[in-house]
Amino acid sequence: MTLHEYMAMQQKTVDAALNRWVPPESTNPETIHRAMRYSLFAGGKRIRPLLVISAADAVSDAPVGVESAACALEMIHTYSLIHDDLPALDNDDLRRGRPTCHKVFGEAMAILAGDSLLTLAFEVLAKLEGVSADRRIELVRELAVASGTVGGMIGGQVNDIEGEGKHPTAELLESIHRAKTGALLRASVRMGAIYAGADAAQLAALTKFGEHIGLAFQIVDDILDVEESSEALGKTAGKDAAQHKITFPAVYGIEQSRKMAEDERVAAHLALNIFDDRATRLRELADLVVKRKS
Amino acid sequence: MTLHEYMAMQQKTVDAALNRWVPPESTNPETIHRAMRYSLFAGGKRIRPLLVISAADAVSDAPVGVESAACALEMIHTYSLIHDDLPALDNDDLRRGRPTCHKVFGEAMAILAGDSLLTLAFEVLAKLEGVSADRRIELVRELAVASGTVGGMIGGQVNDIEGEGKHPTAELLESIHRAKTGALLRASVRMGAIYAGADAAQLAALTKFGEHIGLAFQIVDDILDVEESSEALGKTAGKDAAQHKITFPAVYGIEQSRKMAEDERVAAHLALNIFDDRATRLRELADLVVKRKS
Repeated sequence: MTLHEYMAMQQKTVDAALNRWVPPESTNPETIHRAMRYSLFAGGKRIRPLLVISAADAVSDAPVGVESAACALEMIHTYSLIHDDLPALDNDDLRRGRPTCHKVFGEAMAILAGDSLLTLAFEVLAKLEGVSADRRIELVRELAVASGTVGGMIGGQVNDIEGEGKHPTAELLESIHRAKTGALLRASVRMGAIYAGADAAQLAALTKFGEHIGLAFQIVDDILDVEESSEALGKTAGKDAAQHKITFPAVYGIEQSRKMAEDERVAAHLALNIFDDRATRLRELADLVVKRKS
Repeated sequence: MTLHEYMAMQQKTVDAALNRWVPPESTNPETIHRAMRYSLFAGGKRIRPLLVISAADAVSDAPVGVESAACALEMIHTYSLIHDDLPALDNDDLRRGRPTCHKVFGEAMAILAGDSLLTLAFEVLAKLEGVSADRRIELVRELAVASGTVGGMIGGQVNDIEGEGKHPTAELLESIHRAKTGALLRASVRMGAIYAGADAAQLAALTKFGEHIGLAFQIVDDILDVEESSEALGKTAGKDAAQHKITFPAVYGIEQSRKMAEDERVAAHLALNIFDDRATRLRELADLVVKRKS
């Protein structure tokens, strides 16, 4: 199976699981379930769920039900996009090529849809079947910390907002991105590993892998924002410069940024050295993250 | 110890626990931790934590660390107030007698502070010490469901928003309030019971108790909104009528609403019949909920 076919298959599995976990649109209150589903099923690439599943596969053979744990990551990611797009934050009208949640459902419903997805992520983890309570609570802890304020996603977002217009230093840049995007990507890999019962050495290796592709992902994101059109990205391009955001191209220039992304890709591969062919998909995903065009 | 003294003591215990769980203001990013603390330490009555602790006490003798589980409830409650007060929702400038979170920290930070408290609530439950993983995961599930869209807090909020200006029927009224305020109060009592290891009969009795005081609480809230001043309430009074909200006074009139609150109080007492003196504080809290003036 090619990576492309593998991804298409896993995306279907994840979408089916999301469809089972999110209440149907016909469930009261209908509006909130419509809003949640609108943003969840907007054609996202499901990178985080793919990392969860591929990391679990690297540890043990296709553990049953791991796609449900993967759903929790996608719910957190989607809630963060909905809230990030709000007028009070990034004020974005376009996401994944479609009007943002608040443009369609209004601001009140978008705020609540984000809250709902955030809450549902933890409900899903608590209700995972065939996984011990010990592992489920470890997953809850991992996701909560990675999404939180101290070194987690929200912390990165706040630093990012407060960094606008500040002098872009290398330290500030790295601390923002390790938290803002990196924490959740790292958690994706770790949660897959925890789900599959990784031992300490496996978890440490996969954690390193997650950190390297997390950084690679953000560097490439920053480059794409400069180089690609809004149409290609499915979201407003060139926003970083317009908002005076601290980005890798702003600090290092495009060429150096490209080299840094490649270094992270290589380091990600190295981290997987203790794994055999089981980690092939993870290696391919690391390549994809660096070579993607949107 | 009088109820008043008991409450003051427990509020201190809860505030100390909150202070341990929420990162200090000096932790990066400082702004978000200031915003979280501003709203958490705004002089709330800590009704939900008190219910958690008192329900746990009814089941077993003062279980160690229950105040940490209680913190999770207060974090969810506070996040819901912060988001509810936003311009896109209730657009309120005053809460607990002080400017609302977004008036002080701006809308972006208020949205993120709410998200952070919601996330931290689950981190706290995952990290509870001296409680089995089985019980911790049960607490996570309970809190997530009670805060969610299907019969939970967000579901009630959405119905409440969408109900504005609609013909106020008894069914609509009850379904809104069972979810909007009731679900979290019910969960408070149940989480205390689960924490303390309640058996099935105890949990069933305490669940009934939680449902009755939940309804009583909301009826009294609606009455106070009509009868008291903004100064006495510490929040804008008379808003329900101004926004054409579906309330108990609007459907039943003030006198009948008062009688209904009293009926719920009596039913709450009855539900506690299987408990001896251990449940005294719960009985007193039921009385307090109905007799309060703010």
